[in-house]
Amino acid sequence: MTIQTTDVAIIGAGPVGLFAVFECGMMRLNCHVIDTLEMVGGQCAALYPEKPIYDIPGFPEVLAADLIDRLKAQAAPFEPVYHLNQQVMSLEKTPEELWILETSKGTRIQTKAIVIAAGVGAFGPNRPPLENLEEFEEKSVFYYVKNREAFRNKRLVIAGGGDSAVDWALSLAPIAEKVTVVHRRAKFRAAPESEAKLHKLASDGIIDLAIPYQLEGLQGDNGVLKTVVLKSLGGEMREVPADVLLPFYGLAMNLGPIADWGLDLNGTHIHVAPDSCATNLPGVFAIGDIATYPHKLKLILTGFAEAAQAAHTIRTYLHPGEVYHFEYSTTSGVPELK
Amino acid sequence: MTIQTTDVAIIGAGPVGLFAVFECGMMRLNCHVIDTLEMVGGQCAALYPEKPIYDIPGFPEVLAADLIDRLKAQAAPFEPVYHLNQQVMSLEKTPEELWILETSKGTRIQTKAIVIAAGVGAFGPNRPPLENLEEFEEKSVFYYVKNREAFRNKRLVIAGGGDSAVDWALSLAPIAEKVTVVHRRAKFRAAPESEAKLHKLASDGIIDLAIPYQLEGLQGDNGVLKTVVLKSLGGEMREVPADVLLPFYGLAMNLGPIADWGLDLNGTHIHVAPDSCATNLPGVFAIGDIATYPHKLKLILTGFAEAAQAAHTIRTYLHPGEVYHFEYSTTSGVPELK
Repeated sequence: MTIQTTDVAIIGAGPVGLFAVFECGMMRLNCHVIDTLEMVGGQCAALYPEKPIYDIPGFPEVLAADLIDRLKAQAAPFEPVYHLNQQVMSLEKTPEELWILETSKGTRIQTKAIVIAAGVGAFGPNRPPLENLEEFEEKSVFYYVKNREAFRNKRLVIAGGGDSAVDWALSLAPIAEKVTVVHRRAKFRAAPESEAKLHKLASDGIIDLAIPYQLEGLQGDNGVLKTVVLKSLGGEMREVPADVLLPFYGLAMNLGPIADWGLDLNGTHIHVAPDSCATNLPGVFAIGDIATYPHKLKLILTGFAEAAQAAHTIRTYLHPGEVYHFEYSTTSGVPELK
Repeated sequence: MTIQTTDVAIIGAGPVGLFAVFECGMMRLNCHVIDTLEMVGGQCAALYPEKPIYDIPGFPEVLAADLIDRLKAQAAPFEPVYHLNQQVMSLEKTPEELWILETSKGTRIQTKAIVIAAGVGAFGPNRPPLENLEEFEEKSVFYYVKNREAFRNKRLVIAGGGDSAVDWALSLAPIAEKVTVVHRRAKFRAAPESEAKLHKLASDGIIDLAIPYQLEGLQGDNGVLKTVVLKSLGGEMREVPADVLLPFYGLAMNLGPIADWGLDLNGTHIHVAPDSCATNLPGVFAIGDIATYPHKLKLILTGFAEAAQAAHTIRTYLHPGEVYHFEYSTTSGVPELK
């Protein structure tokens, strides 16, 4: 496996990670950016793209997705290399005091410095605790609906009690052959109007409600699902013939492998020096929501300022003998990186 | 003189002072803002409104004046009271631990907290050291050209050797009765093309060049100028009949009365605790370029983050017993202040 080299590896492509690309670029440092999501933008892109944000300076109101587009455009002149849909698994130090990162896809990156801008950590769907789940994932079990048409004329089991489960049940019922909604409580946690529609579809015989039931097992071969086995709280079993299972159990957030790198942690946060964003590991910095110090404010704005601080510190760290001639962007504009 | 009361008095209406209004507003604190300039925006508005800025997060490029417009709009819902064209002269503490500010226009403001966001300090035109200058200022002596037509058919003396002096000489020569340009050196510090035009006008007899000469005195009555007296470096005197003197000697920057308030200063900077932006005076905070601490970055972005930090600290300072329920702006939007 070939290895890619860079000045700075940024873990996390949320707003703060993207702005770190810009700030490193202004210091003439190039960047690779790794993120577990398949797109840049972190929570702004994945969880609330349509939500307005009010506390970014200069924006009386900006949609989260628009902010991400603008930050990506601001970083673009510095030609960052994005490694998406993969998690940094291991961190290793070379005898030359460089770091080598390896991702879940086997990407290997050798870097002089690391900026951890991982927010709340890696986040992804909560997975139901079913023995042979992995066999069916991405074949018959899906956590996102990317293409609604893929479920036309299919027998669907939708699991969960929140808005996602209810809204997708309503959306897919007209095109699916059959929809069974499984929830472990009688009451849903969805918008009342949506829940009312769900019960109407159930009383009309268009969908089946299996409540209160939990997922118990999956049956099938080679990833092709045949039956979803349910179990009531009283222990009653039920077998639902099905082609597809769609579990909507919310998002899990966790530090992931970062927790094992020897960083000075406070729960799921990384201790940093506030004047440099340096962690206890040489050449490793943390910024944004994942970084903590006394009186830290968890604002996107704070993360932006930390990105600037980290970039300046890295510049000095990598060029210790050199006095950096600080110029205002109004004077010099955006430098050419190469 | 009546006294106005507020939660927070912000000294300086530059970008950082304006964003402090927003951050205080989010903490449900209302603000009065004082600035020596006649408009908000500080240097962005007065010195480089047309310059693009590249390092504000979310703006690949923004003109300084546009950034100010956006920050002013972002602050507007919190209804700040602006006191422009006046300088804070004195600071006084009441027995109730409140502060009373008085400005050069006699405005008196009683406030619970003060945020100094004064950038490089008050700035204004460098004034020539002439004995009776004040008598003529704003009558026959002007430091800005607000309305070019006001100088039609007038005899003008323009003093200075930079772009402003040269450009205004070129601009006003066609409409003035006479233009004399006074500079203490033979060489101008203006764009070569402009300087060439100036010398052409001089050799055509359209303007007079008095170089190398300095301003020596003003003669006239009740603010009506009659003669500007010049002196060469060799001591030779020259009297120029004139209606108007336009000195273009650049901008002076100084802390002004702030220097005498007992703040812990480092030259023209104020020492603050970086985690709170608190100065050594209780209830007095400093943010932006005027505030200093180890590894401080003089970026507008840094000032924005400090504004957030100061606002949160002031909230706690004014409501010590109360746990502030922190909400993301995406959740709660912008609060109603009253």
